[in-house]
Amino acid sequence: MKLSDFTTRSGEWLRGMGPHSEVVISSRIRLARNVSGERFCSKLDRARRADLEKRIRLAILAAELAPSMLYADLTQSVELERQLLVERHLISKPHAASEDPRGVAVSGDEQISIMVLEEDHLRIQVLRSGLQLDEAWEQISAVDDKLDDSLEFAFSKRLGYLTACPTNVGTGIRVSVMLHLPALKLTGDIEKVFRAAKDLKLAVRGLYGEGTEATGDFYQVSNQVTLGKVEEDIISDFRHTIIPRIVEFEQMARRTLLNERTHFLDDKVHRAVGLLRSARILTSEEVLFLLSHVRLGANLGRVRDVDVGLINELFLNTQQSHLQKVLGKRLDTEPRRIARAEYVRKKLGSAD
Amino acid sequence: MKLSDFTTRSGEWLRGMGPHSEVVISSRIRLARNVSGERFCSKLDRARRADLEKRIRLAILAAELAPSMLYADLTQSVELERQLLVERHLISKPHAASEDPRGVAVSGDEQISIMVLEEDHLRIQVLRSGLQLDEAWEQISAVDDKLDDSLEFAFSKRLGYLTACPTNVGTGIRVSVMLHLPALKLTGDIEKVFRAAKDLKLAVRGLYGEGTEATGDFYQVSNQVTLGKVEEDIISDFRHTIIPRIVEFEQMARRTLLNERTHFLDDKVHRAVGLLRSARILTSEEVLFLLSHVRLGANLGRVRDVDVGLINELFLNTQQSHLQKVLGKRLDTEPRRIARAEYVRKKLGSAD
Repeated sequence: MKLSDFTTRSGEWLRGMGPHSEVVISSRIRLARNVSGERFCSKLDRARRADLEKRIRLAILAAELAPSMLYADLTQSVELERQLLVERHLISKPHAASEDPRGVAVSGDEQISIMVLEEDHLRIQVLRSGLQLDEAWEQISAVDDKLDDSLEFAFSKRLGYLTACPTNVGTGIRVSVMLHLPALKLTGDIEKVFRAAKDLKLAVRGLYGEGTEATGDFYQVSNQVTLGKVEEDIISDFRHTIIPRIVEFEQMARRTLLNERTHFLDDKVHRAVGLLRSARILTSEEVLFLLSHVRLGANLGRVRDVDVGLINELFLNTQQSHLQKVLGKRLDTEPRRIARAEYVRKKLGSAD
Repeated sequence: MKLSDFTTRSGEWLRGMGPHSEVVISSRIRLARNVSGERFCSKLDRARRADLEKRIRLAILAAELAPSMLYADLTQSVELERQLLVERHLISKPHAASEDPRGVAVSGDEQISIMVLEEDHLRIQVLRSGLQLDEAWEQISAVDDKLDDSLEFAFSKRLGYLTACPTNVGTGIRVSVMLHLPALKLTGDIEKVFRAAKDLKLAVRGLYGEGTEATGDFYQVSNQVTLGKVEEDIISDFRHTIIPRIVEFEQMARRTLLNERTHFLDDKVHRAVGLLRSARILTSEEVLFLLSHVRLGANLGRVRDVDVGLINELFLNTQQSHLQKVLGKRLDTEPRRIARAEYVRKKLGSAD
């Protein structure tokens, strides 16, 4: 498997399957880990960094974490490939942009990914479609244990796992759930979710994590506290209380739209389809916004001729790097927007 | 001919024919006239007003101004009918809203209309498709002469025609040309037209005259000075200098869009078609805005499956009163917006 193979398949985070997948796009758990006896990344010179990268790489490849595992030395990759990984939620933007020795390991099904020498020595991630936090926790614990055996992670009895940034000290865990909340946005009740999340010390972010705006009604809800809590409690709160409540709130808003504001709902949904089928210039942000309404319409049975699989495909492949990969050519901003509109029209079977 | 017959035909102002009709929607000349020896409207009590209305009505009907001439006593009309006349540019909004004795005369082809007892005793209008100011002037002069024979208009050798509002004293003429300037709007050069118009002491208004915003890129350019000028000079300025220059400026902007910004142009045009074919809720303002882009696209050959006749029909029949007349039922705001969208989809042959 090579980096360039990624585009032909839909990423795990957008498979659109799994429990509560109408609202819950994906569940993600991330663990921050550092190798005992080694300095934190920011304190490593280039040579020691390269040595450590190699040591971790070998440990990962020896651990047999999945039937198929790709390891990529990111210093050897081109920008387009790194952006593809960002768009598939497999590496962070800073990890893509860095010029230091670093790598990433990705399992064939894209459920497991490990950033090597990002902020911490290892950022282990398990990503699953729909609401699958228990499954993700079980999976990531196994990965964590196997790697701990060979690498021995820095751990303090008093503080827990030691991490480069104090906010991650303790469990080093971040639990995130990506939610699609178009109905709450349309009814205006989304503000209540934000307020409730704030009270619960949760972070609500956009599609690509920290510092990004929520686009296309996608919201990433994650914990902020990592110290003084047990992993299982954090996950259980998400799994059994926080997420089900937001899901139910969104479903209520959808029922309200469907039963009491049908024309309003249909207007949003069909305008979105109409624009996707007719626009000649499309930014990725607008596509996201429009597909969000189409997805809502498809889930509520208001759009019959656009299936969910196609919507997911468009979500992924209209992103900047995916689009260029799919079309097999590099494109500047303007031509890319034109090519994106053309690609979307073709996929949606537009008349002209 | 009855008031209620109007909806089945396209109004003169939107026939979309005549010279320069790609840019010039219609040419209008209006004369303000008052009957000598009678007080201005605002000084008339109800009884004398009724007498004067009758006197003018008989003079109009006796004058044989056109092969077929409808006279409507507006106190006997229902609001929907009066709004139809407003939407067809045959009477003003204040004339529709008034509760005093008053009337309107309209020729069968809608080229001639005479408001009786609006601000002045008579407001004579000739409206022609495209740029036809000379023709309109010839036509309105004949009407003016015939009515002057029987009614004898108030005229001062020093001031000219006397009118209720001092701004109309002198010639009592207003020359207006309705222009469709979507390309200048898209390129941003429309501001230059506004500045030039201001320098020339011209007024630029929206679709329905004074106090209305320019909607859907339609602009009504008219003279403001009526005193100390000869009618022929005012018309000649419009006919040979002002309007041809604006038309050429708009045509240049269209060529620029077509040749240098084709994708941008097509994007606007096809989005407009796409939205009209898919929206479930439409205000008349949005329809106007969208049809404006479709009209531009049709004129430039970028839309092949929507013809100009249909565009004009939609312009007229999606307006509030026309829509209700065409659908044969009264509708409140929300149901009207839904019915409008349905009507538009049906007319444009939308898939669903």
